[in-house]
Amino acid sequence: MTRGIHQPLVLHEDRFFDSDPSVRFVARSLYEETRELPLICPHGHVDAALLADNSPFPEPTALLIVPDHYIFRMLYSRGVPLESLGIPTQDGTRVEGDPRKIWRCFASHYYLFRGTPTGVWLDHELSDVFDVDVKLDAHSADYVYDQIAERLAQPEFRPRALYDRFNIEVLATTDKATDPLDAHRAIRQAEWNGRVIPTFRPDALFRIASPEWSGELEALAHRFGRPIADFPSFISALQERRRYFKSLGAAATDHAVLEPYTARLSPGDADEIFRRALNSRATAADHVRFEAHMLVEMARMSVDDGLVMQLHPGAYRDHNHLVARRFGADKGADIPVATEYTRNLSELLNAYGNDPRFTFVVFTLDESAYTRELAPLAGHYPAMRLGPPWWFHDSIEGMTRYRHQVTETAGIYNTAGFNDDTRAFCSIPARHDLSRRVDANYLGRLVARHVIDIDDARTLARAMAYELARDTYRLGSAPATTAASAPATMGAR
Amino acid sequence: MTRGIHQPLVLHEDRFFDSDPSVRFVARSLYEETRELPLICPHGHVDAALLADNSPFPEPTALLIVPDHYIFRMLYSRGVPLESLGIPTQDGTRVEGDPRKIWRCFASHYYLFRGTPTGVWLDHELSDVFDVDVKLDAHSADYVYDQIAERLAQPEFRPRALYDRFNIEVLATTDKATDPLDAHRAIRQAEWNGRVIPTFRPDALFRIASPEWSGELEALAHRFGRPIADFPSFISALQERRRYFKSLGAAATDHAVLEPYTARLSPGDADEIFRRALNSRATAADHVRFEAHMLVEMARMSVDDGLVMQLHPGAYRDHNHLVARRFGADKGADIPVATEYTRNLSELLNAYGNDPRFTFVVFTLDESAYTRELAPLAGHYPAMRLGPPWWFHDSIEGMTRYRHQVTETAGIYNTAGFNDDTRAFCSIPARHDLSRRVDANYLGRLVARHVIDIDDARTLARAMAYELARDTYRLGSAPATTAASAPATMGAR
Amino acid sequence: MTRGIHQPLVLHEDRFFDSDPSVRFVARSLYEETRELPLICPHGHVDAALLADNSPFPEPTALLIVPDHYIFRMLYSRGVPLESLGIPTQDGTRVEGDPRKIWRCFASHYYLFRGTPTGVWLDHELSDVFDVDVKLDAHSADYVYDQIAERLAQPEFRPRALYDRFNIEVLATTDKATDPLDAHRAIRQAEWNGRVIPTFRPDALFRIASPEWSGELEALAHRFGRPIADFPSFISALQERRRYFKSLGAAATDHAVLEPYTARLSPGDADEIFRRALNSRATAADHVRFEAHMLVEMARMSVDDGLVMQLHPGAYRDHNHLVARRFGADKGADIPVATEYTRNLSELLNAYGNDPRFTFVVFTLDESAYTRELAPLAGHYPAMRLGPPWWFHDSIEGMTRYRHQVTETAGIYNTAGFNDDTRAFCSIPARHDLSRRVDANYLGRLVARHVIDIDDARTLARAMAYELARDTYRLGSAPATTAASAPATMGAR
Repeated sequence: MTRGIHQPLVLHEDRFFDSDPSVRFVARSLYEETRELPLICPHGHVDAALLADNSPFPEPTALLIVPDHYIFRMLYSRGVPLESLGIPTQDGTRVEGDPRKIWRCFASHYYLFRGTPTGVWLDHELSDVFDVDVKLDAHSADYVYDQIAERLAQPEFRPRALYDRFNIEVLATTDKATDPLDAHRAIRQAEWNGRVIPTFRPDALFRIASPEWSGELEALAHRFGRPIADFPSFISALQERRRYFKSLGAAATDHAVLEPYTARLSPGDADEIFRRALNSRATAADHVRFEAHMLVEMARMSVDDGLVMQLHPGAYRDHNHLVARRFGADKGADIPVATEYTRNLSELLNAYGNDPRFTFVVFTLDESAYTRELAPLAGHYPAMRLGPPWWFHDSIEGMTRYRHQVTETAGIYNTAGFNDDTRAFCSIPARHDLSRRVDANYLGRLVARHVIDIDDARTLARAMAYELARDTYRLGSAPATTAASAPATMGAR
Repeated sequence: MTRGIHQPLVLHEDRFFDSDPSVRFVARSLYEETRELPLICPHGHVDAALLADNSPFPEPTALLIVPDHYIFRMLYSRGVPLESLGIPTQDGTRVEGDPRKIWRCFASHYYLFRGTPTGVWLDHELSDVFDVDVKLDAHSADYVYDQIAERLAQPEFRPRALYDRFNIEVLATTDKATDPLDAHRAIRQAEWNGRVIPTFRPDALFRIASPEWSGELEALAHRFGRPIADFPSFISALQERRRYFKSLGAAATDHAVLEPYTARLSPGDADEIFRRALNSRATAADHVRFEAHMLVEMARMSVDDGLVMQLHPGAYRDHNHLVARRFGADKGADIPVATEYTRNLSELLNAYGNDPRFTFVVFTLDESAYTRELAPLAGHYPAMRLGPPWWFHDSIEGMTRYRHQVTETAGIYNTAGFNDDTRAFCSIPARHDLSRRVDANYLGRLVARHVIDIDDARTLARAMAYELARDTYRLGSAPATTAASAPATMGAR
Repeated sequence: MTRGIHQPLVLHEDRFFDSDPSVRFVARSLYEETRELPLICPHGHVDAALLADNSPFPEPTALLIVPDHYIFRMLYSRGVPLESLGIPTQDGTRVEGDPRKIWRCFASHYYLFRGTPTGVWLDHELSDVFDVDVKLDAHSADYVYDQIAERLAQPEFRPRALYDRFNIEVLATTDKATDPLDAHRAIRQAEWNGRVIPTFRPDALFRIASPEWSGELEALAHRFGRPIADFPSFISALQERRRYFKSLGAAATDHAVLEPYTARLSPGDADEIFRRALNSRATAADHVRFEAHMLVEMARMSVDDGLVMQLHPGAYRDHNHLVARRFGADKGADIPVATEYTRNLSELLNAYGNDPRFTFVVFTLDESAYTRELAPLAGHYPAMRLGPPWWFHDSIEGMTRYRHQVTETAGIYNTAGFNDDTRAFCSIPARHDLSRRVDANYLGRLVARHVIDIDDARTLARAMAYELARDTYRLGSAPATTAASAPATMGAR
């Protein structure tokens, strides 16, 4: 097959900008100033081993489809069995193994992504990263597959080469608290200047009522090198792990919870609940109280060690039990729930929200909280910043709503800049590019309506595309452990 | 009075399209391709007797005002007594009976509808259906009344003639489970080709704590032809009624609940609760559990008989007790409440949401659920589709928000197409026209910002205006009882 | 310093209008018709003593920064200690006392307000009220300070002169129920024609579980001139105070609660709870029930005395305990919570919502309630009107969302017009101007999309800018105590 018989794939230079000429003109000129800035990636899920090993990527299907739940959940929702997409089963039942057959199935359903960010990212990725010049559909499936496969075989498409070509300045991964971080160590020892840093994510250690907890605790004790028989030694082990993460460049911790409930336990209660957990007798109520306490503890440790604290609440995990049992977690079946912040965060913010040493980045899947709770909180507490639109909201409309809803109350400087939050390495440039375009367009709207002038817009565009992410996570060239750039505030609590 | 002294009523050809020329140009061209497509009406409240009898419509007031709570609630909200609008009272107290006087009152308050969908629909209806060429106000009231009355007397304005002129392909009514469907039978036997089909709505039979329940059950037993003394025979009777509805063309069931709570009862519990209901001792808690169980049962039956299941939750009925006591239900006093879907639908979706034989169309009056819960659910479960913007949201802004909030997560193909949901037969073309214009405009925005190209937009426009409604409700020319068009999915639960 | 070296501050004539020429053209022409209309200010927090004394304003910092929590909360959120902004402490600890130093700190952080309404208001105020012609920043700080200080020394900048220049028709303050209203009496006796009226706000008297309550009750008894030993005399005292407020021109009452819960107590329960309060034994649950009952009582009294009832629910006060302890209330640390209206207002609306003598203006900090609950309620109950976008939502985007979300269900005529809700006297013109621009732009969008025509838009623009506020609060030139302009409704409950 040749390109001739397919529809051309062309990324329009002005894509995602309003068509109104006044807005578009400003948006385009702002974007021109940010498009080449290095990428700061302070939160994501790329596997560090990718860059440690620097092996060639496998063929297109294994790279683009099988690991990406953004993609296969959409096909599943329209009736395509996950087995036919090669998603591995938990029990090893055979699934489709022919990558080209899976690719064709994907291509013939690619129309489902019209108007979605996944569609937009993929087009960018196909065109810009892999030089594909035709629209993907059932007819062009093989042609596109071959084109990508051909590129993947070239040395310029090895992970480190792409990292450099993508102009990534720093890439944070997300890692279990018990992870030995071997890949991160390998990268630091390699003859390569990429900055790949871990992020400390101890969620599993806080889920004391889960059957997996004792295994997690054992792993922690193993890393700690000592038994963990009581709550104080649990705390010590966590502190030690944070130190270890930090020694490998970590800038942040990350915490995923259903409700962002925070509350302190008395030392006695903490001890008692921890003991029940050790005896596998922790209840669901124990879990809630323990997790709430541990979030406050994490904030306390962040004040001490300078790791930025990230909170990602509100995802009801594994809503589809059949999919979870058969295929495992992270298969596109995590569904948001309404999330309360004002009361839930009260204890943590009252304890540490006024402390100039603390940075607390809060995310949401519940957009109704933007104007109601999150912008007012971020617009008051010195420690708090609003994370960028997360997951389902990491999109043209989602980002636009975010800026329009958040800015008037919190301003731009209480937001944390962009992060791509992706496990799809090759989609990173597409995601940053989309974000920079949407932010430029938002600013273009402000300028065209004379809310701000073009000089201010220029300064803001650079902040939104680059500086806010770098500074929020303290990722400046001279890594700082104290908040040097933050003005002094009112001191001790 | 003559037209000359009144302000002209002109429907602008480009109405509801963005004024930005790039968007408008695309929107107009997409709309040109969908405006003449037949109307699929898979959910609404037109009285089938209208088309069975095919009698002339009464005069304008009885046709347009007295039965339409969209209209009289607005006048009531600004202080016009319902009595003066001729709304019949429950106790037979006399109300205004002069249709022309009521019409004048309506006309002098018509300014209240500026910027509302009701105003827009009415202008369309007056202009396009009744050839009225002046704006309605106190001065033109009589002139307009006479014009409509004159038209209603003509044979071309009989219901079936209008049905044909409106280009309706299929019209679903909404009917109590115990309805004998005489009008539907009469239509099928008539010398007329209109396709009017019933929809199975058993709500009243699930409200076991209501004083009306025993009467409803009696009616069910009467239709069933056998006594209903226990839960299994209740289930059998419902299955039999569904068969009967289906025999008259029914494509769907419909369920209105306050909370969309779903949960299974054990057979023992179901039996026990049903027995309490038979003895008029069912509690409010029993009602909640029973209804939750019956929703799961309805899903089970839909898997078997192929009826599409519709769920309309979140309306707090009869909020104004004075209005309810004096004028009865459906008088514009139903007010939405916040509605939770993620947890509430969990049991039903886990039971049947992966089944390729099941289609489940979910509606909402709580727009905050679009991005948070509904789009993620519809973007994952094969069975689930999102219904179009319902009731207060069936409007220019409401539909626009819906598309902008839903598409990026669920895509277009997990939405169910448009339905007019109306009891106002003559407003049907206006409602579909508005929807087609708004969808064309939404797509125009995507094209003008180069999110999708014009070819894709053309395909989507046709899907949104016609195919999605037809296919979701399986209303294709060859009525299908199995989901033939759906790709095979992963099979048995 | 001279102007020459600073960036010019220019307010664009078309600011806040969409850049699309069709919208802008209409918006501009509508705004031209409303920009000079007098200002109706039916709700706000200006200190009446300002206009009673008519003393010169102090220097710029004491006028613009220290009293304005919109401003200093934003600086605080980015790490500027409140002490360094001169915010007085509760315990008298010394804070920064050099106004020029505070002003410089503010000026050097003024970039934080880019894209916020505070920034927009301030620019308007600096330019239009004080003739400042340069952008405020660290470099221009002293130049701007001197310019404002120079103006404040002139007689044309005394409060009454500004009131007249601002073209204020009526200005309502907000006053504790126990306030003697001395300043209001002084204004009425002065040789000046300004109309400054009090608003009755009895919140503190309903918080029976608060340690401050007994002091508040004592103050009430003092004003009442009799001891208050039981619930009936409490009611009598409140009625008497309402009469007193009305005698000084009051048009409305105002009520701030966390949840807008309304419910009647039996006379026995009311008595008993009140007795517990007298003995300082009222519980938090007592408080909730008592406040719910008192809201219904306030509605009842409004039916009798014609005072418009305003409800401002949903602000969680003093979220930051450290700030509250150190600096007191109203320091930018009040954070909204999700707010339920449908069920909570049911008892009050069922009791008085159908009464033509009652006007009930409801506000929200929870925008998700606009389309879900508030517009449907206001679009049904004759007594209810929706207040304008409040606080965080009193902004370009906030007002725009409000109109787009509310109008289609409630229409324009169930909204209450604009109020500025400010304690910053000099910002009043800026706030009304912004509101008139945004409403003109909203109407411009409707006209440009042919939803309404220009004639209707013209009528609506005038209503939104002036008449709705005047008529909702019955502030017409001939002060009316009965709802003369409201059409008769269905009479007795």
